[in-house]
Amino acid sequence: MKWKPSRLSHLTIQEQIVDWIKSRIECGDWTVGTKIPTQRQLAAQFNVNRSTVQLAIEELKADGMLESKMGSGVFVANNSWNVLLDRSQPNWQQHIESSIYKPNYRTIQLINEYEQYDHVIRLGTGELSPELLPTKQIEQSLKVISLDAKSIGYSSPQGSLKLREILCNYLKKRDIQTSPENILIVSGALQALQLIAMGLLEEGSVVFHEQPSYLNSVHPFQSAGMHMIPVSRNPNLSDNMRTLKRKRQSLYYCVPTLHNPTGYNWSLEEKKNLYNVCNELQIPIIEDDVYHELLFEPTSPAIKSFDASGQVLYIGSVSKTLSPGLRIGWIVAPSPVIERLADIKMQTDYGSSAFSQEIVAHWISTGLYERHLVTLREQLKRRAIFVENILDQQFKEIATWRKSEGGFYIWLRFNEPIVNKRLFLDLLNQNVLINPGYIYDSGDLHHIRLSYAYASLEELNIALTYLLEHAR
Amino acid sequence: MKWKPSRLSHLTIQEQIVDWIKSRIECGDWTVGTKIPTQRQLAAQFNVNRSTVQLAIEELKADGMLESKMGSGVFVANNSWNVLLDRSQPNWQQHIESSIYKPNYRTIQLINEYEQYDHVIRLGTGELSPELLPTKQIEQSLKVISLDAKSIGYSSPQGSLKLREILCNYLKKRDIQTSPENILIVSGALQALQLIAMGLLEEGSVVFHEQPSYLNSVHPFQSAGMHMIPVSRNPNLSDNMRTLKRKRQSLYYCVPTLHNPTGYNWSLEEKKNLYNVCNELQIPIIEDDVYHELLFEPTSPAIKSFDASGQVLYIGSVSKTLSPGLRIGWIVAPSPVIERLADIKMQTDYGSSAFSQEIVAHWISTGLYERHLVTLREQLKRRAIFVENILDQQFKEIATWRKSEGGFYIWLRFNEPIVNKRLFLDLLNQNVLINPGYIYDSGDLHHIRLSYAYASLEELNIALTYLLEHAR
Ligand SMILES: Cc1ncc(COP(=O)(O)O)c(C=O)c1O
Ligand SMILES: Cc1ncc(COP(=O)(O)O)c(C=O)c1O
Repeated sequence: MKWKPSRLSHLTIQEQIVDWIKSRIECGDWTVGTKIPTQRQLAAQFNVNRSTVQLAIEELKADGMLESKMGSGVFVANNSWNVLLDRSQPNWQQHIESSIYKPNYRTIQLINEYEQYDHVIRLGTGELSPELLPTKQIEQSLKVISLDAKSIGYSSPQGSLKLREILCNYLKKRDIQTSPENILIVSGALQALQLIAMGLLEEGSVVFHEQPSYLNSVHPFQSAGMHMIPVSRNPNLSDNMRTLKRKRQSLYYCVPTLHNPTGYNWSLEEKKNLYNVCNELQIPIIEDDVYHELLFEPTSPAIKSFDASGQVLYIGSVSKTLSPGLRIGWIVAPSPVIERLADIKMQTDYGSSAFSQEIVAHWISTGLYERHLVTLREQLKRRAIFVENILDQQFKEIATWRKSEGGFYIWLRFNEPIVNKRLFLDLLNQNVLINPGYIYDSGDLHHIRLSYAYASLEELNIALTYLLEHAR
Repeated sequence: MKWKPSRLSHLTIQEQIVDWIKSRIECGDWTVGTKIPTQRQLAAQFNVNRSTVQLAIEELKADGMLESKMGSGVFVANNSWNVLLDRSQPNWQQHIESSIYKPNYRTIQLINEYEQYDHVIRLGTGELSPELLPTKQIEQSLKVISLDAKSIGYSSPQGSLKLREILCNYLKKRDIQTSPENILIVSGALQALQLIAMGLLEEGSVVFHEQPSYLNSVHPFQSAGMHMIPVSRNPNLSDNMRTLKRKRQSLYYCVPTLHNPTGYNWSLEEKKNLYNVCNELQIPIIEDDVYHELLFEPTSPAIKSFDASGQVLYIGSVSKTLSPGLRIGWIVAPSPVIERLADIKMQTDYGSSAFSQEIVAHWISTGLYERHLVTLREQLKRRAIFVENILDQQFKEIATWRKSEGGFYIWLRFNEPIVNKRLFLDLLNQNVLINPGYIYDSGDLHHIRLSYAYASLEELNIALTYLLEHAR
């Protein structure tokens, strides 16, 4: 589908490339400041030698249309526009830089980008491997789903009633008693956090969380102007939070089950203690429980299960268990909260995909979901043991870790502070993508989040060997 | 699934209802300040007389658990909590009121709510009638879609490459030349506006738009702190915008094809003029073109088709044509804009439903989509004529309107300023839901947005009769 130079043209290949790049600039797709693809990418697209691309780019630089910036690539030059036409363009760069939302950290942007390439081994990805996804079964289930016209129109604010009723029932097994009116369907757990940030907190509010934290790798609260304050769960928690909060509104965000990035579980006592402290200070709790279904052994009940004051906003999702592509999650919360968040959701995207909701309803209500979970946990466990064996054999001298209790991750701690941007880039150069600890705790140069869920066993083996070479 | 009192219990029905309401409060689902369902709704849920519900509520009021607020319903009382337990609750009302996002207007919340009820005739709904949705065909297409595991994992930032390639091709027919890298898949056109608000404008920026405007009925820019400034497209447009903008960043939002709520089309001259003015002032244009496929006759080309300066952010969607439940739309824009918006989308919801994307890709690439559009336009046209006939016969004395050129709407103007909240509520009382003009232009008491797309012909007939009675 992509443009390629033609051998039949009366123009040389280089001339055609020059014209094509000019046309991209002329038609406004590549505005001033756009970083153009690398020579390697262009050569692959055009199916020509890199040297031909290079010559074309040199020509355009000489004409003042493109410019190199040391170490960061080739860009559409400031005066390219004057060269081409006497037209002005909006100053997109300025629009972007002054706008509200924070950009992702560069490392995370790189991760998002490199996760697209098949040749890269993903040693940290928080996602099920393609081989663990029940792709064929989902495809089969598409064949038996029957749609009615009402359900594929614009959704009611809280999402499919059928799915909410099914979830209600499903959550009972976890000792969470609720009703369909107290559930909001969202497009994944991340959107739940986004809606809470916009709908329940004034600017300048405080979000307490543990360090390291998933919240440092995404920005739902930071972009809404909240202060992120790490607190540790020690006996002074209550006094600490009272002092840190002052008169400001606040929230406590936690992942008590199979925490991201550490994989740790809280004890029942720790949960009760947090609940009581927050209750005393009237601080709502966000209990992000997206990994719950992946516990190898049952653990203590969710905080939500003993919440008698409507204090806990409980979040779930099928991203970690069934398919992230569904983009379906849920929030369980008191009625005023659900109504408020549903109202904002209607203003944000008019609801989640009806088709995804149908699929999830089908999987949970028929029991397909729970049968799949049984196998999935076994497979994850086998993978965890595989990686732990390699670590036992090769990493004992230089790193420490805890045995996995479920989910995807091992929070590997190197004795030396070697996990820096350099290591990240060096490994990327060898086509190994890691999730360094500093994206979850900016001061941390000791950890990486190992994921045994994504790469194949063979790839895990290779990547850990590379890692070992760099770490020694 | 919902709770009902049991005839077999040793408690009276009323006692059971009292206990159930108490338990909802106790478990924290109904927090202080929650508005409880109406007596009518509860009586229907419990399958009992309204008087029994009333007695139960009186008892709870006497106990201090519930309280009435004049004209607005029954609420969980402030001291209900003290009555029940010695626990404190987060002050949700305060959290909500001080938070960032604006609530929907009350009228729009009511519309969202009443659109859920089957007995209500929807005279203004901007959505295809269930009978116009190709439900069975979509169901059929689910059976032939084949999934691969890569496509149902977390998405790449811009969305499915397959779908972007298909769209690229599809848009060519509209003289829009672009490439897959310049397309971002979003969860509907509304999300496109949301992302632009967060990613391309600083707080206090100006969004120019026409009055009346769809943007007054949703708040993507307002909630992000932008100023909405209506401008009319007269010969002084350039001077006006220059003066109104001052030194602030700005954008021009428009729906030049089958405008919502008026249904009007711009002429080519108007489009060129706007483009030139915005180009001169370096103001980006959002061209919201979600109704394009529903034109009864071809109209002048999209502004995007003659955009040579990367000035136009072009938005499309399948919500108005195929199914709103898919939640799939797209933005075509210069590369830096797409990269920025894709980055924010990843932080907001990690991409749109992979399943919805597969369905849309299938429908467009196989030609199913265009075949469906042919029939759909015919059916809409028949409906438009049906409504126009009724108007011709019955509304000529009291109102004016233009003949529809496509889409869903007739912008009906009453000679007298009768379209106020009273009329809205009176009609709602007769189970007729209208979209009054004031939600698109707060000062407008003359118009309603008639939609011939949703209700059945019979319902349209009935509802227009009611409307006539109130309007005379
Ligand atoms: C703790 C935690 N919460 C939320 C999410 C987001 O999940 P979803 O795909 O449901 O938005 C993730 C995924 O990385 C996560 O690890
Ligand atoms: C002009 C206009 N833009 C955008 C939208 C939102 O469409 P979507 O369902 O694709 O988010 C609508 C729907 O009401 C509309 O009328």
